[in-house]
Amino acid sequence: MDIGFIGLGHMGRAIVANLVKAGHTVRVWNRSPGPAQEAAGAIAVGSPAAAFAGDAVFSMLADDDAVREAIVASGALAQAKKGLVHVNMATVSVALAEEMAKAHQAQGVAYLAAPVLGRPDVAAAAKLNILAGGDAKTLAHVQPLLDAIGQKTWHLGEVPSRANAVKLAVNFMLGAAIEATAEAAALAGAHGLEPDAFIKLITGTVFPGPVYEGYGARIASSSYTPAAFAARLAHKDLRLVLAAAGTAKVPMPLASVVHDALLETVAMGDGESDLAVLGKTALRRAGRKT
Amino acid sequence: MDIGFIGLGHMGRAIVANLVKAGHTVRVWNRSPGPAQEAAGAIAVGSPAAAFAGDAVFSMLADDDAVREAIVASGALAQAKKGLVHVNMATVSVALAEEMAKAHQAQGVAYLAAPVLGRPDVAAAAKLNILAGGDAKTLAHVQPLLDAIGQKTWHLGEVPSRANAVKLAVNFMLGAAIEATAEAAALAGAHGLEPDAFIKLITGTVFPGPVYEGYGARIASSSYTPAAFAARLAHKDLRLVLAAAGTAKVPMPLASVVHDALLETVAMGDGESDLAVLGKTALRRAGRKT
Amino acid sequence: MDIGFIGLGHMGRAIVANLVKAGHTVRVWNRSPGPAQEAAGAIAVGSPAAAFAGDAVFSMLADDDAVREAIVASGALAQAKKGLVHVNMATVSVALAEEMAKAHQAQGVAYLAAPVLGRPDVAAAAKLNILAGGDAKTLAHVQPLLDAIGQKTWHLGEVPSRANAVKLAVNFMLGAAIEATAEAAALAGAHGLEPDAFIKLITGTVFPGPVYEGYGARIASSSYTPAAFAARLAHKDLRLVLAAAGTAKVPMPLASVVHDALLETVAMGDGESDLAVLGKTALRRAGRKT
Amino acid sequence: MDIGFIGLGHMGRAIVANLVKAGHTVRVWNRSPGPAQEAAGAIAVGSPAAAFAGDAVFSMLADDDAVREAIVASGALAQAKKGLVHVNMATVSVALAEEMAKAHQAQGVAYLAAPVLGRPDVAAAAKLNILAGGDAKTLAHVQPLLDAIGQKTWHLGEVPSRANAVKLAVNFMLGAAIEATAEAAALAGAHGLEPDAFIKLITGTVFPGPVYEGYGARIASSSYTPAAFAARLAHKDLRLVLAAAGTAKVPMPLASVVHDALLETVAMGDGESDLAVLGKTALRRAGRKT
Repeated sequence: MDIGFIGLGHMGRAIVANLVKAGHTVRVWNRSPGPAQEAAGAIAVGSPAAAFAGDAVFSMLADDDAVREAIVASGALAQAKKGLVHVNMATVSVALAEEMAKAHQAQGVAYLAAPVLGRPDVAAAAKLNILAGGDAKTLAHVQPLLDAIGQKTWHLGEVPSRANAVKLAVNFMLGAAIEATAEAAALAGAHGLEPDAFIKLITGTVFPGPVYEGYGARIASSSYTPAAFAARLAHKDLRLVLAAAGTAKVPMPLASVVHDALLETVAMGDGESDLAVLGKTALRRAGRKT
Repeated sequence: MDIGFIGLGHMGRAIVANLVKAGHTVRVWNRSPGPAQEAAGAIAVGSPAAAFAGDAVFSMLADDDAVREAIVASGALAQAKKGLVHVNMATVSVALAEEMAKAHQAQGVAYLAAPVLGRPDVAAAAKLNILAGGDAKTLAHVQPLLDAIGQKTWHLGEVPSRANAVKLAVNFMLGAAIEATAEAAALAGAHGLEPDAFIKLITGTVFPGPVYEGYGARIASSSYTPAAFAARLAHKDLRLVLAAAGTAKVPMPLASVVHDALLETVAMGDGESDLAVLGKTALRRAGRKT
Repeated sequence: MDIGFIGLGHMGRAIVANLVKAGHTVRVWNRSPGPAQEAAGAIAVGSPAAAFAGDAVFSMLADDDAVREAIVASGALAQAKKGLVHVNMATVSVALAEEMAKAHQAQGVAYLAAPVLGRPDVAAAAKLNILAGGDAKTLAHVQPLLDAIGQKTWHLGEVPSRANAVKLAVNFMLGAAIEATAEAAALAGAHGLEPDAFIKLITGTVFPGPVYEGYGARIASSSYTPAAFAARLAHKDLRLVLAAAGTAKVPMPLASVVHDALLETVAMGDGESDLAVLGKTALRRAGRKT
Repeated sequence: MDIGFIGLGHMGRAIVANLVKAGHTVRVWNRSPGPAQEAAGAIAVGSPAAAFAGDAVFSMLADDDAVREAIVASGALAQAKKGLVHVNMATVSVALAEEMAKAHQAQGVAYLAAPVLGRPDVAAAAKLNILAGGDAKTLAHVQPLLDAIGQKTWHLGEVPSRANAVKLAVNFMLGAAIEATAEAAALAGAHGLEPDAFIKLITGTVFPGPVYEGYGARIASSSYTPAAFAARLAHKDLRLVLAAAGTAKVPMPLASVVHDALLETVAMGDGESDLAVLGKTALRRAGRKT
């Protein structure tokens, strides 16, 4: 197919490479031009509008503001022809997702929310889990494209923003798991058990899986840079979680604590470190060696 | 070997069965006499002191008070002969663990803390993970017994109470994982996703493993009885977590929230339901159908 | 002076009455026309723009959205003549306050933030405390107007938004004091002391003053309607507190709990009750008679 | 009357001085003998038992352990003659209060709980507020003594431990008020308002009274030593608050946060500073100058 792709960060580049490999024509745009020019096999274009055309267009942008700027303020959506499908993969607020769904409908452009689970290495391996929200027929239309980049697509219903709400719920669970590991390791440490032994114990018994193993290894070794998922971005996500919870009137006291721990982490200057740096925050709070 | 066993609740009975099966002579005592008399292949005895003899004695009691009563107030420890090994498997406070270690030392009785990970079905399958604290030689002495009941023994060092602290840290992580799942499912539900679909999504992607799958299935189906691990006991454990954290001066804000959610659950009359009932508490708080 | 006034809720009406009494000509506008027509001694006008003229214009609107709509979207600001002074008394977000300051500057209109402390009865008595932010000369210019409606003006500096941040900080303290009273009364009640006796004790000893006395009396008698300050609006304010804290990178764990208690209160259907209804929420959480 | 007094800390000494001044014979005992020998007009005695005699005996000890040691372990209670009245002024746990009431009843000694509100300067001025729990006739008997040391006695009912529960509820409110002030001042400070100006504003408007003024002045000037009420002791009290709340099944999420903030304060080495040092903790958490 002839597709566009907007946003070539770590995730976007890995995804584009898989789309190219699957034989699609991919017109790519990025705010800073370097990544677009370097995307092997893809065609760099000069504006979001030039990417916002063809059979479908994907976007993978950093946050609400980036989406508003590249899709709306740039005029890309306003110039789009009817029938185009836009697959928005960004982790955005539920409020923006609803706003975008309406704006696309008004323009006659089909809109799918498709945030993903998986970090850049997972994207590179085409093993993403894709949380899709939107019309089933539209989804079926782009399914071959999604199959080229992910291991499974979870269709969560017709309302696009639901996929964003679910993605935020999962990221909250991620933050909660790391904060719990951080506090538990600090407690075990204060009673004399080395963090490495503690992490081996929990991942070798009741908490297997990529989250506890991956972030746990970083906590065990106090190695928080470079970030695979920056604390600053996790803080942003928790902010969006609480906003989605507020709108839906769902009190989430655990999410509030995770949010506050991340805000403290950012305030202390560790925002660019990996989310696992919550391990450092927990130790500092206890007056222990970090 | 000739061993004693004190405390025949769900866990104790399953463990005794495996010790008998391994060919050991097991003298058993329980506060209410029924379970001791029904323990196939074991010898029911009339007092804790009668069980507190032989090569080694195990105890698997409900809480600090039960330990104090059966081991100390009963006179069992005071009458024990030097050289006996006591393996205390209960989830008790760090403070009691320290007190017990001293009392045993004064009496010349070897003391091992050996709380376990795994519920009754895991105990029946002899697949427990045993968190052992105490002298390495003493541990080696009873290792054949532990091998008859568990899949792995994690020796956490010479200080018995450390094993109890670590067990509490793990139980905290368990409570945090369930509360996180409960809040996340409530959020996803408020945005239209059925809890069953949400649990399938998270366990099928980033949160595999027995905790999210087991408790998640209960949250997905709102089936909270009979309890495999009662909310009331989880609340007690979180109280012990916070006590251990206080003594060690480790602030644990996430643990405080899990504690409060469990206290609320108990206050609302759901203390005898399974820990997964946190899913109900999260929905009630949101004014949603529970 | 010749002044405009936008927004005639409970607060606005009381303030306008005092401005009229002080001899000023007051052109008033309200979204629903009734309150403007009924404002004795004032001149009802047909648009925000008609009020946004003269020597100065006050606005007392419900929230950010109402301010955006009445001041910006209506064209009132865009049509204002240079030199006009706008005194914005609403409790708005710090972000909106900054945005408004810029927009006014661009239009050549002087801008003062002037949120107030005091409920409608205090406003009627011309006893408000006014938290003023903005240029000192501009403030001096409208000081006679402020003196007609308040007992004291606290000039908090040249940056208008600072007054809004401080107002939010005070409203957080208000919510924290009520939640603390609610939890403490529930604890005392569970130990057998009637709430009325508890409130008398604390206000008669270490916690005198309007907050503990006023809200305390409502908690003591479980009388939560009609609302003097609705829980729904307090929840909105706490949301703005956390937003201001996030931007400034100030973790506020106590504010998070107050926020969550208010969200729970709103979710349970008590949003239109008075902020004191936190007393009911605390009792319900404890499974006690509310 | 002929009375005994056990425990001559800052509070005890001030109270004894007022009892002496009122013309009573006071036999005093303190663990370290210095303060008893220096108590002008009082008679130093050599054991708690020697003080635990006469018409009535007061005790003002630091915590549960000190009470157990001086009253029970010393044999003082066991040797007391029937009809003696013991007025226990310490801030102790509800559990100990219940235990003490039973032990006194078994010995035929009347028992009143009488924790007080007020710091040493208030005690010196005989202006304490006394929270009394116990039999009304017994209370009437010692009322002249209480009138010599306090401005008012609040009889909270026949159950002694209720007075302790209420005292803990008040101390929780105190901690909550200081933590709220600390967080609010940090927020206002981050938006540019000096803490001194913020404290003046709140105490001059909606939060008058000794708590906000006294602790607020310390926060405003960052002067945390010497302590009038040490953070370490406030932490202990919050621990007792949560214990009393747990027994009574009253979730207190705000109390949990105050507890955690105090634990963090103690962990960071500020336990001997005044409770107002929560102001420093709030700033540190925000990465701001403390």
